[in-house]
Amino acid sequence: MTAGEPIPRTIEWRAGRVRLIDQRALPTRLRYLQCRTVDELCDAISTLAVRGAPALGAAGAFGVALAAATLPRAASVRAAARKLKRTRPTAVNLAWGVDRALGAFEEGGRAAALDAAQRIADDDITRNRSMGQHGAALLDRLVEGRRARVLTHCNAGHLATVGYGTALGVVRAAHELGALEHVWVDETRPVLQGARLTAWELGRLGIPHALIVDGAAGSLMAEGRIDAVIVGADRIAANGDVANKIGTFSAAVLAHHHRIPFLVAAPLSTVDLGTPNGAAIPIEARDPEEVRTLGSTTVAPETTPAHNPAFDVTPAALVAGIITEVGVARRPYGRSLPALFRRDRR
Amino acid sequence: MTAGEPIPRTIEWRAGRVRLIDQRALPTRLRYLQCRTVDELCDAISTLAVRGAPALGAAGAFGVALAAATLPRAASVRAAARKLKRTRPTAVNLAWGVDRALGAFEEGGRAAALDAAQRIADDDITRNRSMGQHGAALLDRLVEGRRARVLTHCNAGHLATVGYGTALGVVRAAHELGALEHVWVDETRPVLQGARLTAWELGRLGIPHALIVDGAAGSLMAEGRIDAVIVGADRIAANGDVANKIGTFSAAVLAHHHRIPFLVAAPLSTVDLGTPNGAAIPIEARDPEEVRTLGSTTVAPETTPAHNPAFDVTPAALVAGIITEVGVARRPYGRSLPALFRRDRR
Repeated sequence: MTAGEPIPRTIEWRAGRVRLIDQRALPTRLRYLQCRTVDELCDAISTLAVRGAPALGAAGAFGVALAAATLPRAASVRAAARKLKRTRPTAVNLAWGVDRALGAFEEGGRAAALDAAQRIADDDITRNRSMGQHGAALLDRLVEGRRARVLTHCNAGHLATVGYGTALGVVRAAHELGALEHVWVDETRPVLQGARLTAWELGRLGIPHALIVDGAAGSLMAEGRIDAVIVGADRIAANGDVANKIGTFSAAVLAHHHRIPFLVAAPLSTVDLGTPNGAAIPIEARDPEEVRTLGSTTVAPETTPAHNPAFDVTPAALVAGIITEVGVARRPYGRSLPALFRRDRR
Repeated sequence: MTAGEPIPRTIEWRAGRVRLIDQRALPTRLRYLQCRTVDELCDAISTLAVRGAPALGAAGAFGVALAAATLPRAASVRAAARKLKRTRPTAVNLAWGVDRALGAFEEGGRAAALDAAQRIADDDITRNRSMGQHGAALLDRLVEGRRARVLTHCNAGHLATVGYGTALGVVRAAHELGALEHVWVDETRPVLQGARLTAWELGRLGIPHALIVDGAAGSLMAEGRIDAVIVGADRIAANGDVANKIGTFSAAVLAHHHRIPFLVAAPLSTVDLGTPNGAAIPIEARDPEEVRTLGSTTVAPETTPAHNPAFDVTPAALVAGIITEVGVARRPYGRSLPALFRRDRR
């Protein structure tokens, strides 16, 4: 694959299997994983072969379709749905996708489940493009006549979705509009989604960017080299608190300190009106080994204890705007987010 | 070597050579590097075999002693001194150590240069222990009746000095006093001095600690699990602005946001009254390859541009106190730092 060639869908249904881009092999190799069973798909989710809230929404739905296609009894499909939901607790899209496809299965059986999953996948790309338009217009207004220099954390791109991306979708749309100058990419320890995935995507798209360690964002802000921070989200609570990859909260506090807008781009399926605030969002604790090692390199003594929360919560007070597929929500989010849901239903 | 056994001096003079702990091999192996020439020592400094402002002060002085012992003419010794100073621009101790030993050489020749270097090395340990006492007493007062949970960034320990440590010297002294509960260790990308060196030291010292990625410090503060941040410094300007390892400024802003004291521990040799403020401190830009790779693992596409400043500047306004060997300086540092120098001269 060469730069400029479009990236295939992150996740899709192919001949009775769920085919994923295996993100563990990136940026070295673009390879695919074929999941024939729900167990294989659960393993792919747990090991981060597929990750990113919107992509997990599609994975959950395709997982139910896979269960419906391979398991003999409705009770087994329901058990598989529960198992899928348990693989990762923070991203609300996973449960949302599972529930949508399971609802379709209960009403219309196996074909209906697959149909619902396909619709979620197709819809994801459409919604991301729409989010990109809203976000690019917002960025353009923020910098007025200049082109924007943005910082992003983790990967909220094509690979975090079925296609196009959320925060990186906004970046792409701004680039297409001629409103983007440069993207600073946080490497995003411990799993390095920024270095491995975001840098890879931006390179293929020909969007000017540079990689930094997570600790370098502050000095770039102090030097006046960042106009906005834009990230995705794993779950947004009803009050606008945002759970996203560990380190997001630091970027938000730094942005606040430097009076730089901190923006979140996420589809409405990431907004969970049933979660009142950030304190109610379960934060996944991952294996300490992710901190002690990096690829094949051990970076700390083997006996060193490590603490590895996968996500943190950025309070709504630090969030300047939430960019969705139906428009941009502003504070107070307790009012603006339900209004966007009403707009979506029209 | 086992836990509890004392660590040899980071740098010392042995039979006409400068012997260093080769910090590139840690935490996997404790091995030594014998520098027979100034060129070998310059290479050891550039490649971070020895690093840390106070250790670099001793390295600079021993380097001049090595030049005096191996080079035939005074002009060559002066050229070697200039070369040593150029290896790393940010830490002021390096130039300070070089100038001290060179001054002694000009007055008393080769023996005087070595004598000056030995005095700097011995003095470093004494001063660090004294800094530890001042800092531990301060930490103890901060938490009043509880034991302190501190965060540190990079390595300001035994390995950053000739022995004992600056910020970790304070941690050690607090531990000995029974005033310390736990140390959170930022891994400190890109070179991972926290994971490789600080975690190793704390493990050997039996001090309770846990490693985190740099992006996780914010959520620990938000959860109320950090009482103070304590770091070392590479250069402190006359107004109290502090240059230290990249990521330090982020920790300071996060501490400020959470009303947690941000403390700096450094000997007076790190304070440069000739540098008016942080803007005048030269910040070393290191090889982007340090960001794109980690040990033997490539973490980003090979063609990805990366930005790799080795240090950042924390403005004095965010620094709650500067712990030195003669006492703790408080804002305004423009007044308190010169007062500490006067106290040192008595």
